[in-house]
Amino acid sequence: MNFKYPVWHRLHKQTNKTVLISAADKSGLPAGSLVHIGKKHETACRISITQYNEDTLKQCEIKSISELQQLQDNKSIIWVNIDGLSDTSIVEHIGAELNIHPLVLEDILSTHQRPKLEEYEDYIYLVVKSISAQYNGNLDLRYEQISILLLANYVITFKEKADEIFKPVYYRMQNRKDRLRQSGSDYLAYVLLDTIVDEYFVVEDCLDDIIDPLEDSLLSNPTKEMLHTIQLLRRNLIAMKRSISPLRELLTTIQHANTALLHEKTLRYYGDVHDHVLRVTDSLDSYRERIASIQDIYLSSISNKLNETMKILTIFASIFIPLTFIAGIYGMNFEHMPELKWRWAYPALWIIFIAIGIGLLIYFRKKKWL
Amino acid sequence: MNFKYPVWHRLHKQTNKTVLISAADKSGLPAGSLVHIGKKHETACRISITQYNEDTLKQCEIKSISELQQLQDNKSIIWVNIDGLSDTSIVEHIGAELNIHPLVLEDILSTHQRPKLEEYEDYIYLVVKSISAQYNGNLDLRYEQISILLLANYVITFKEKADEIFKPVYYRMQNRKDRLRQSGSDYLAYVLLDTIVDEYFVVEDCLDDIIDPLEDSLLSNPTKEMLHTIQLLRRNLIAMKRSISPLRELLTTIQHANTALLHEKTLRYYGDVHDHVLRVTDSLDSYRERIASIQDIYLSSISNKLNETMKILTIFASIFIPLTFIAGIYGMNFEHMPELKWRWAYPALWIIFIAIGIGLLIYFRKKKWL
Amino acid sequence: MNFKYPVWHRLHKQTNKTVLISAADKSGLPAGSLVHIGKKHETACRISITQYNEDTLKQCEIKSISELQQLQDNKSIIWVNIDGLSDTSIVEHIGAELNIHPLVLEDILSTHQRPKLEEYEDYIYLVVKSISAQYNGNLDLRYEQISILLLANYVITFKEKADEIFKPVYYRMQNRKDRLRQSGSDYLAYVLLDTIVDEYFVVEDCLDDIIDPLEDSLLSNPTKEMLHTIQLLRRNLIAMKRSISPLRELLTTIQHANTALLHEKTLRYYGDVHDHVLRVTDSLDSYRERIASIQDIYLSSISNKLNETMKILTIFASIFIPLTFIAGIYGMNFEHMPELKWRWAYPALWIIFIAIGIGLLIYFRKKKWL
Amino acid sequence: MNFKYPVWHRLHKQTNKTVLISAADKSGLPAGSLVHIGKKHETACRISITQYNEDTLKQCEIKSISELQQLQDNKSIIWVNIDGLSDTSIVEHIGAELNIHPLVLEDILSTHQRPKLEEYEDYIYLVVKSISAQYNGNLDLRYEQISILLLANYVITFKEKADEIFKPVYYRMQNRKDRLRQSGSDYLAYVLLDTIVDEYFVVEDCLDDIIDPLEDSLLSNPTKEMLHTIQLLRRNLIAMKRSISPLRELLTTIQHANTALLHEKTLRYYGDVHDHVLRVTDSLDSYRERIASIQDIYLSSISNKLNETMKILTIFASIFIPLTFIAGIYGMNFEHMPELKWRWAYPALWIIFIAIGIGLLIYFRKKKWL
Amino acid sequence: MNFKYPVWHRLHKQTNKTVLISAADKSGLPAGSLVHIGKKHETACRISITQYNEDTLKQCEIKSISELQQLQDNKSIIWVNIDGLSDTSIVEHIGAELNIHPLVLEDILSTHQRPKLEEYEDYIYLVVKSISAQYNGNLDLRYEQISILLLANYVITFKEKADEIFKPVYYRMQNRKDRLRQSGSDYLAYVLLDTIVDEYFVVEDCLDDIIDPLEDSLLSNPTKEMLHTIQLLRRNLIAMKRSISPLRELLTTIQHANTALLHEKTLRYYGDVHDHVLRVTDSLDSYRERIASIQDIYLSSISNKLNETMKILTIFASIFIPLTFIAGIYGMNFEHMPELKWRWAYPALWIIFIAIGIGLLIYFRKKKWL
Repeated sequence: MNFKYPVWHRLHKQTNKTVLISAADKSGLPAGSLVHIGKKHETACRISITQYNEDTLKQCEIKSISELQQLQDNKSIIWVNIDGLSDTSIVEHIGAELNIHPLVLEDILSTHQRPKLEEYEDYIYLVVKSISAQYNGNLDLRYEQISILLLANYVITFKEKADEIFKPVYYRMQNRKDRLRQSGSDYLAYVLLDTIVDEYFVVEDCLDDIIDPLEDSLLSNPTKEMLHTIQLLRRNLIAMKRSISPLRELLTTIQHANTALLHEKTLRYYGDVHDHVLRVTDSLDSYRERIASIQDIYLSSISNKLNETMKILTIFASIFIPLTFIAGIYGMNFEHMPELKWRWAYPALWIIFIAIGIGLLIYFRKKKWL
Repeated sequence: MNFKYPVWHRLHKQTNKTVLISAADKSGLPAGSLVHIGKKHETACRISITQYNEDTLKQCEIKSISELQQLQDNKSIIWVNIDGLSDTSIVEHIGAELNIHPLVLEDILSTHQRPKLEEYEDYIYLVVKSISAQYNGNLDLRYEQISILLLANYVITFKEKADEIFKPVYYRMQNRKDRLRQSGSDYLAYVLLDTIVDEYFVVEDCLDDIIDPLEDSLLSNPTKEMLHTIQLLRRNLIAMKRSISPLRELLTTIQHANTALLHEKTLRYYGDVHDHVLRVTDSLDSYRERIASIQDIYLSSISNKLNETMKILTIFASIFIPLTFIAGIYGMNFEHMPELKWRWAYPALWIIFIAIGIGLLIYFRKKKWL
Repeated sequence: MNFKYPVWHRLHKQTNKTVLISAADKSGLPAGSLVHIGKKHETACRISITQYNEDTLKQCEIKSISELQQLQDNKSIIWVNIDGLSDTSIVEHIGAELNIHPLVLEDILSTHQRPKLEEYEDYIYLVVKSISAQYNGNLDLRYEQISILLLANYVITFKEKADEIFKPVYYRMQNRKDRLRQSGSDYLAYVLLDTIVDEYFVVEDCLDDIIDPLEDSLLSNPTKEMLHTIQLLRRNLIAMKRSISPLRELLTTIQHANTALLHEKTLRYYGDVHDHVLRVTDSLDSYRERIASIQDIYLSSISNKLNETMKILTIFASIFIPLTFIAGIYGMNFEHMPELKWRWAYPALWIIFIAIGIGLLIYFRKKKWL
Repeated sequence: MNFKYPVWHRLHKQTNKTVLISAADKSGLPAGSLVHIGKKHETACRISITQYNEDTLKQCEIKSISELQQLQDNKSIIWVNIDGLSDTSIVEHIGAELNIHPLVLEDILSTHQRPKLEEYEDYIYLVVKSISAQYNGNLDLRYEQISILLLANYVITFKEKADEIFKPVYYRMQNRKDRLRQSGSDYLAYVLLDTIVDEYFVVEDCLDDIIDPLEDSLLSNPTKEMLHTIQLLRRNLIAMKRSISPLRELLTTIQHANTALLHEKTLRYYGDVHDHVLRVTDSLDSYRERIASIQDIYLSSISNKLNETMKILTIFASIFIPLTFIAGIYGMNFEHMPELKWRWAYPALWIIFIAIGIGLLIYFRKKKWL
Repeated sequence: MNFKYPVWHRLHKQTNKTVLISAADKSGLPAGSLVHIGKKHETACRISITQYNEDTLKQCEIKSISELQQLQDNKSIIWVNIDGLSDTSIVEHIGAELNIHPLVLEDILSTHQRPKLEEYEDYIYLVVKSISAQYNGNLDLRYEQISILLLANYVITFKEKADEIFKPVYYRMQNRKDRLRQSGSDYLAYVLLDTIVDEYFVVEDCLDDIIDPLEDSLLSNPTKEMLHTIQLLRRNLIAMKRSISPLRELLTTIQHANTALLHEKTLRYYGDVHDHVLRVTDSLDSYRERIASIQDIYLSSISNKLNETMKILTIFASIFIPLTFIAGIYGMNFEHMPELKWRWAYPALWIIFIAIGIGLLIYFRKKKWL
């Protein structure tokens, strides 16, 4: 029998040309085949280990996952943070080491995931999107998919890029009296989630910095650039909502999860993150409404401007057109035009011109145009 | 190992510069660290104590929470009202004294909370937003976060500002026969909630005072300022909805709460507050629809105005343009233009001018333009 | 200690000035204080008693609630109808007589209630809004809050005004064989509800009488008044929906109520009212959509009109402007203009004028403007 | 005591004048009074009987319901179809014969019902709306209320008009091997429902025949008539949705009904109808979206047209207005105008005219207007 | 008795004329009559058999379903794929062979199904829509209904067309170590579903290829063709949503199905498909919002253009109209016009002309028009 494999071939051809394998191109691959899907960041993969309990705190980088086994003991929590997903063998190793379901490994590598939570027998798998904003004239939002594997003594985080989003967590860990040092892996996972969600508020502050002045200058002086900004904000709000709103559901699930991995005392803290997420999504909704209203006002302003333009044109035309007609009449070359010979015709005509002009101006003022 | 703490540093730099710590800046702080987040009001913290039962009523101010312990007895309800949140040590003290969860203390101090209710073993924590309105030309809405801690014998309220929103409650307390004096702390919490919700109706009256005349004068005379008012109302409605609508859920939860802190007899009263909140949110929805419709009508009016302007311009131009052309013809200097020498040419032309003018006017009238 | 009572004082000042106490002004009053809130109707309170069973029917008016006790027997149903709420003492008396919860009494007197149902141990409290319409050029909707107290042998109705909405019920009662005479108080309450809901259909007929011709004349001849009518209809639809839609929920609750006051056989009838309410709300929704669509069409029509105006202006201007220019050229006074001396220049120019005019007309026809 | 019965009287006056008794006019009548509400169709009532089992099939018409009793046996299913509702005594007879609840009888006669299902002890009552379409230039939708009473051995259908909607059912019955002949009354009821729902697809085909060409010709040539068609389609879609969407709920209820009247094997078939109804409502939703989008495009097209008109006007005016001004200058009669005497002034002016014209054309082309 | 069968006849007449039997035309046919409803594709039906277990893999084509019986054994999974539905007898045979419910057979042949899942005692019936996209200037989406019958040892797929959508599945099967070879029929059904859903991502990439450049070029240069593209995209999004969104529900049902046909281990995989579908529908929603926003921006751009056109026209007209009037005055032929004889009148007039022109330009610049 003779098979053709068009989709498969297309995939290979493309990978030669560009480093980007879109989600679509993976169609046709068996589920569970570990290919990194998403923008490839140049970062070499970096594996940082943080091992801590109430008394000790060790931090180091390792080259290979196999070193992990030596660290293992029952008295401390180990947080493995992996920056960069280009080396799929790391994920594969971790999967083998900790007995992770192949679908989870696949999802870790594919950075187009929707935020979600999956409970397995001895671990919980979380995907969230961190968003960081920079505003310097243009709004620049950067998305990063962060996968969190929560096991009894491990927390493993997979990040696309080597950014500093988890720095505050490292900082807190220095403090021996912090609750973090005294609690289990579930509390660490909470702290990580909370850190990610807190970043959303920074993004919202950024949005406020753009929307507030936009709203204020809108009525006085609408410019074409505003439309561009409105458009941009809208797109970003749609994208943010897609990344954030599944978290609500996720955090509801986590609070009602029936698993030994999460201690009841920690659930309150997840509830707190849930409140924060609700606050963020509420804000997003109201931003959206404000943007919609801003666009309406923008359109109104343009209509208003058009109206004013028309008014001026109409006033000019309406006043001068009849006057010009009259002037045209006495420019005619008929032999028999008695007015042309009258002594006071010309000054009289000036009076008529002025009277017509003033009359029309009064009429327009009555119409509330002036 | 070498850590950088950018978020943390940024926070400290900012606090030196301004008194405002936005929610975003707290990102990176461990949950449970007590920092007042929100606009700092200059008010010094004031702690007022009201201790009452059916027979006695004592009111005083104390300087420090430690004085509270002396007041304690089992026969009376103690209401502690704290105006101003700038002194975080007070909240800390209360937390220690009454064994309050650190997350609650943190929420009390962060004034960007979404209204919510949290049940703990021996207390209930409520956050609501009071809204007070002033309308003098401009609509001025002031929001205040009020936290209510309901314990078996205590009600503790935390307010951002030292305003008089709870005055009616103090007044009712004077009356020995009032149900308030005869009931427990749950009834006091209800009275406080009810007082806050009743203020919403005052705000709605304010909105009516703005929207009704706006709607009436809209069709007759749309002005540019209206657009500004519409915009303003919309923003305020969005903000109000965010503050009020979570109360619905909150009050449903309270009515079905399974806790010894709330007596069954009091639940009816919470149901009454629930009805009021439903009424307010219904009104907000209908205000919103009216505002949307007002804006539509405003835009229509502008279109109508443009149309009228165009009609006048068209009438003027259409009548005089052909006439001017005819006058132009007989202004030409050709040697051989027989009409110029005709005896009655000039008066005949006048008749033609008038005929064309009247003809066009009749045509426009048939088109329903005049 | 020194208290100020601003809200309270404001209330008293206002009551001297006007008879209207808005809901907002009651903020600050203890729940359960019986003050009539709403428009005060001049009607003196009238208490009509109808006492009936299968065999007898007595109807009378009484002056004071105390007379009610004499009528009581176990064999007949007593319907007490109170027209006008200005005399709060009547409500207070009934409350005392029949042991009604103070919150219910308060709600009866406050005519800004949302339709709702409250079950108590030995009675059910219902609030509904009756709507009656009159259309004579302007649509005039009148709302009335009707409170129904359903007890084992009593039905007590409280109406704001002394209108004739319950007349059909009195009529039915005359008929000894009517099911009403043979059933209990729950069936009477059903009949009253049904009578109120049937009035909604009359209102809908009224709306049809306005919307249908509006829709028909819209395309042919849009006028500015239509905008006003659209606006009016919209407001009324919003208000009607607020009054009617809570009835759906209310009637669902009643059908699943677990109370001895409602016999299972009567529930079918309440289900029938439920169907009617669903029908009304369905209609309201479709009216709303039609109104929205009518407004869209109206705006389109205005755009169409503007377009037609512009077309005529453009045609006039475009034809005559070049012709006038040419005429202007030969009106110039240059000494050396050879054309001016040509013998057939003038007639030739006329041919050019006509040619240009016809050419432009053909061009515009090709553009589909004529 | 003195009663007035305004609603009642109004009803009687109206019935003399017109044959239409609107739902509103019935307000005030006791529930259960059998009056035909709806458009009265001239058809005399026709009662067709179909009695069948696997072996026999008898079809006849009867004059009076009393003949029905003679047909009764336990071995066959009897389908009674009543065309026309003007003779209310037939419905009354059936009600008495089969012990039907008076509310059901009332609903059968009132043809403004919302589709619904009511379970009674020994019968099920169904109301649905059949829709039939005709498209010949104008879309003509005809609605008919069909009531189905399903008993153990009977199916009774009540139709407003004597149309042929059930013909295919009669046809199927001829076939002795059809499942219909071998099944009970529940299967017959399913077949009737299915026949009604299948008609909806014919209506949808009709809508496609209108919307598809509308959409295609929209961009090329928007005409005013389109607006009318859009309006018409919208109204019809709103009306259709009201008639069809309650069927979803109805069919869900039927599938979970706990009654001996429906055999478990038949439920699958009702599930099939349910799927069809879902498909129809999905289509209606997407038609609606398409209509909305068509209207948007229509408005855009009008804007586009206006823009093009304005462009042409602007080009004409902008080119000729300055030229005419220049011609006007040299038409002035000043004694001292040196240019007038220059030898080449006139040809030079022509060059200037042409240069200005071309310059402006180039400018407009750069602006992308030509 | 005399029957007419209009619907039936119409059906037969049509089938002679065209090969398309619309869903509407089937109205009137008994449920369960096997007629292929939908576009008839010319493909002859092709039946491909794939029989596999961990050790063996056999692939062949058969001519008739009766050959199927010979292949049957208990140790391997048989996948029967049927391309083309024109030969209804094949479906009929399979139905008879495997005891499939007639409604299922009917649904397989009618290609207007809504995606759905039906559980029967020994099989599960799934209908899904595959969508494949091609974009070469125009977007070309092709829909295909794929029915999947899942039995204990069989998977039978029915496809409208003989396309290559399942090629990747055939490819995976070659690999002896693939999970597919080691699992049951439920896993095969999952792989098929997953392959179909993965195609949706290809379609989304296509949409991105259209929307992204559209969005970018919108503000700079809106053209009339864009409107066409927007319209097209909208229609496609509506159609895609109809085909895809029922899958969410379907996959939720499958995950909670209580059937021996689906092994618990496979359910995780169905959950993975569910995630993918959620991702697709999320994307569709955000595409839709973007399209709506694009259309808004397009309309704004047109308004902006109109405004600019008007500004230019107004500037030209407003400057030259008064100048032309002045020129007209001195073109009049009055005998007594002293200015005409002044020595410097003409140059002075030029100065006035220039002054007026500059004055108006300054005015317009102050109005922010230039």
